[in-house]
Amino acid sequence: MLPDEQAIRELAATWEKATAVDDYETIAGLMSEDATFLTPGNPPMRGRDAFMAAARSMMGKVRIEASGTFEEIQIVGDLAYAWRTMRVTATPAGGGEPMRRAGNTLSIFRREPDGRWVLTRDANLLANAE
Amino acid sequence: MLPDEQAIRELAATWEKATAVDDYETIAGLMSEDATFLTPGNPPMRGRDAFMAAARSMMGKVRIEASGTFEEIQIVGDLAYAWRTMRVTATPAGGGEPMRRAGNTLSIFRREPDGRWVLTRDANLLANAE
Repeated sequence: MLPDEQAIRELAATWEKATAVDDYETIAGLMSEDATFLTPGNPPMRGRDAFMAAARSMMGKVRIEASGTFEEIQIVGDLAYAWRTMRVTATPAGGGEPMRRAGNTLSIFRREPDGRWVLTRDANLLANAE
Repeated sequence: MLPDEQAIRELAATWEKATAVDDYETIAGLMSEDATFLTPGNPPMRGRDAFMAAARSMMGKVRIEASGTFEEIQIVGDLAYAWRTMRVTATPAGGGEPMRRAGNTLSIFRREPDGRWVLTRDANLLANAE
């Protein structure tokens, strides 16, 4: 495996682990300052600060478990795109029925000047699932 | 405007015009043979042939009008990503209420060996709209 591809796989694995324990400081370091998140039915969420504010507002309210499989990772210079098949379960902290979502993501990763790969654009196509 | 960026904008404009007149031969030439289309709640649609089969099955049943605005186009070598804000109206050929959808797309474009830019990966996040 190419080192760059490995770095992107590790980024995704770190993100999933950090999500499970509400470790948003770690997640903040995995995205670019201008990271943009696209979801169906919502306006674009622009910037790390907007993502972090939304994430913090959910903190302690739900426990999120996410797991994904990369279907493809393509790297050209300092840019990469990748798409994944993912499954996310959000369980209310106070109990209650977990919400399950499944589907694909299409993500753009960028190599920062310091050499680290970060997520910079993300399209989340997950839909309600059994 | 860079010639490459202009080529991608022209590709999108040609696609929209061809969609309005059911000109699927033109659309076929605007995507790579392995083009993959991701939508919420559906499995990935893999390949130009699968896209064309789906498009042809709708031919004559609905009139589709699509218009989009690029929010960003980034080009690195022979790869580009772009995201758009789009609006699509599908009007049943036999009359009836048009279906309106709006939202974002995140697309990957690739420069083919012959120099033409084509769409190769597409995440369509459009949702029902007024």
